[in-house]
Amino acid sequence: MTDAFRPEARAPRGFIDKRAADLRAERRIVESVSAVYERYGFERLDTGAFEYADALGKFLPDADRPNEGVFALQDDDEQWMALRYDLTAPLARFAAQHWETLPKPFRRYAVGTVWRNEKPGPGRFREFVQCDADTVGSARPEADAEIIAMAVEGFAAAGLPQNDYVLKINSRKLLNGLLTSAGAVDPGQRLAVLRAVDKLDRLGVEGVRLLLGAGRRDESGAFTRGAELAGPAIEAVIAFVEAGGGARSATLDRLAGVIGGSAEGDEGLEELGRIGAALTSLGVAEDRAVFDPSVVRGLEYYTGAVFEAELLAEILDEKGQKVRFGSVGGGGRYDDLVARFTGQPVPATGFSFGVSRLAAALRASGLDHAAEARGPVVVIAFDAASMGEYFAAAAELRAAGLPAEVYLGASGMKAQMKYADRRLSPAAVILGGDEIASGQVTIKDLDLGRELAAKVADNRQWREDRPGQLTVARSELVAAVRRIVEAPR
Amino acid sequence: MTDAFRPEARAPRGFIDKRAADLRAERRIVESVSAVYERYGFERLDTGAFEYADALGKFLPDADRPNEGVFALQDDDEQWMALRYDLTAPLARFAAQHWETLPKPFRRYAVGTVWRNEKPGPGRFREFVQCDADTVGSARPEADAEIIAMAVEGFAAAGLPQNDYVLKINSRKLLNGLLTSAGAVDPGQRLAVLRAVDKLDRLGVEGVRLLLGAGRRDESGAFTRGAELAGPAIEAVIAFVEAGGGARSATLDRLAGVIGGSAEGDEGLEELGRIGAALTSLGVAEDRAVFDPSVVRGLEYYTGAVFEAELLAEILDEKGQKVRFGSVGGGGRYDDLVARFTGQPVPATGFSFGVSRLAAALRASGLDHAAEARGPVVVIAFDAASMGEYFAAAAELRAAGLPAEVYLGASGMKAQMKYADRRLSPAAVILGGDEIASGQVTIKDLDLGRELAAKVADNRQWREDRPGQLTVARSELVAAVRRIVEAPR
Repeated sequence: MTDAFRPEARAPRGFIDKRAADLRAERRIVESVSAVYERYGFERLDTGAFEYADALGKFLPDADRPNEGVFALQDDDEQWMALRYDLTAPLARFAAQHWETLPKPFRRYAVGTVWRNEKPGPGRFREFVQCDADTVGSARPEADAEIIAMAVEGFAAAGLPQNDYVLKINSRKLLNGLLTSAGAVDPGQRLAVLRAVDKLDRLGVEGVRLLLGAGRRDESGAFTRGAELAGPAIEAVIAFVEAGGGARSATLDRLAGVIGGSAEGDEGLEELGRIGAALTSLGVAEDRAVFDPSVVRGLEYYTGAVFEAELLAEILDEKGQKVRFGSVGGGGRYDDLVARFTGQPVPATGFSFGVSRLAAALRASGLDHAAEARGPVVVIAFDAASMGEYFAAAAELRAAGLPAEVYLGASGMKAQMKYADRRLSPAAVILGGDEIASGQVTIKDLDLGRELAAKVADNRQWREDRPGQLTVARSELVAAVRRIVEAPR
Repeated sequence: MTDAFRPEARAPRGFIDKRAADLRAERRIVESVSAVYERYGFERLDTGAFEYADALGKFLPDADRPNEGVFALQDDDEQWMALRYDLTAPLARFAAQHWETLPKPFRRYAVGTVWRNEKPGPGRFREFVQCDADTVGSARPEADAEIIAMAVEGFAAAGLPQNDYVLKINSRKLLNGLLTSAGAVDPGQRLAVLRAVDKLDRLGVEGVRLLLGAGRRDESGAFTRGAELAGPAIEAVIAFVEAGGGARSATLDRLAGVIGGSAEGDEGLEELGRIGAALTSLGVAEDRAVFDPSVVRGLEYYTGAVFEAELLAEILDEKGQKVRFGSVGGGGRYDDLVARFTGQPVPATGFSFGVSRLAAALRASGLDHAAEARGPVVVIAFDAASMGEYFAAAAELRAAGLPAEVYLGASGMKAQMKYADRRLSPAAVILGGDEIASGQVTIKDLDLGRELAAKVADNRQWREDRPGQLTVARSELVAAVRRIVEAPR
């Protein structure tokens, strides 16, 4: 190599490489959630990675400043493009572009990578996989219910046990109605109220009460200005956010008592009532999808119902510490997103699985089915002249549906066995000169080797039932390997 | 809507939206090719969309100018990042970064989007899906053979008929050996020879002969300088590129007569001989993988064997015009790519399926299995008060594995039937007030409707065998819909 410049081999900050073991959970989620979406009649749509920056515009969820937080570049015709920040903005652009010719309501799902140009750090990435379903063109609350039902089914299909997750449902209209009744009409003030409510989990009721009023000073001494609501309004908001819990209809009854009165609040209540009824028709259990008035979910994006998926399972990290995964998906009704392009409001609702985060949770809780990680059968290579024999053996195994490879490195027998073990191969196939001459093949049971290593005590019993190595007629190769691969472990 | 600014709803130039029908072929290719790779013991690896620009560096295939043709932007720490141009450069970076801890040889496959910042135009896109397999750390020609065998199996698994594709194999070493024997040692001159040979398909033998000599003036009058080889060298190159065709061993025999002599040429011949032997052991037919000395494949990238997959099927476009799809994948041996980072040469070989282009070819040739496009069963919605009945019916169908949805728009019966037809639904489920009261359900056979529309002549016969609409007991819903969905069409 005469090339003098040697770049350092490293991935850009905030981007990670995922090996097969890391990807197993992610692929399982995407496949099983996609199957749920298709069963509900949603059709797949893939849009490109880039959108024009003006099409993404200010509709970045949770971001008050437009064009912050995206990877943007200028095309050679001077137009600014940005990598998509989520899968909803591209859908809104697509729906606006093709509205006349689409079947309506338009039900689409999407699986794809999204990018956020945020400060990277340990566990903070800039690239995620999402898996969304949205219904565009239906104002019916039943469309929201269906989206929620699919999310619940999706979590189950992805392998989460029943009690490990919950969908929390709220309506932006309820809180808006409450604020209107309380006389808070200024948009800035209303945003401040939403922000305060959104901090309930972190700050508790007392912290939220301060943020609804004059403001709050944190431990570091920093002061956050409050929403400056009057005392009775503060108490109404607190009563509202504490009205959740229990069966869906019971929550609605409590909420009716708290917000009753404003037209928007009543509308929100009626919609939640219809969502609840549809969830029951769809067979969604009371404890898998609950009404929770403390859910805010984004700030300027949603116009009606909002959904948030939360993991409940206690997950321990490698050090035995409890990890809080929190939100692993969310969505809601956004009736203004398509109107941004066309001027015509189009009702829409959807949900997005945070695939990367959910996969991390499945891995951390050991639910990612490590057994599937088993590597291929490795055919040991002794002699270049016998390569044809090795390849024929591997091809035979593959044709029988058993993943197999010939070792193609330059190392000897011992390194090859170590390689097979590192690949988590179930078996190594040995075709030495003697075996070939006598029409035989030797098979080494590597699964057994790993089991023995794991439980040394039962050593003798195991050896009697299942020899670590056996020599059979070459014609018995597939059957003998299959016995090892399919042995109960 | 008070928002005054309305961006135009359009996708950036060179990026396209893909609907379910467009994606069917692409997904089938990715799934079946991935299954082949896994059967051969390759493990999946996903890297991020971005790499540091210096890591992509000059190793853009087919590009002489570094950093041209990529989407690049500067990170907030001033480092330049670029979206990956292919899946090989990120693999080289990953392998260099983790070489010490990887099982060797490292066999990985990858599926992902790649981006090329080229001038967009009709049919010219800037975003593609690729599906690659590479073996890093094996210098054995058998590793090349295995890559070729997987490509051949991959095309078959993706649904291409036997005679519709061929893998063409060459070795950079043969041409290098030939040039050395002919006294052409200047790198610029050798590159010019490769460029000339690469144009054989387009310009024919006479055009290539001119480009190997003084140069060629095209129809527009533009002059391309030639490689300025001497007459005997030109004839040797021409004899070389014309030596292909027929059985693999016959081609090698002819090539031995043409290039014989140089050490590098002999090495190339010996490697192709071993590749041919391994292909035979692997059961790869003589006409699916051929030696073709006219294949060049990239300019500065490959160091040994090169592979190019070509579609042979005559494919007609919508206007009945023959479309030439040409290359739908390729690869080869690149022994210097990892060394760029580490200084240590690491032998590597791989193949990349051009998934997007192959999908376009499958669609154009009607091999994308349009039948799978059928939409969900649609439950007609008459009355908000009966939504529970509709949802329960849809849930029942889905639980039985039949995709189904409740119509959630605001239109009447006629528009709903039209919607179901546009979605290519097999059946519409009608639960009117009468049906609900009498415990029945009416099912409209939409498959039949479409068949009747297609063959009006057989109208009466069809009606006798299969009623267009039937009313059954509500408990018979799933069975009756299943009969329609599973009826032979």
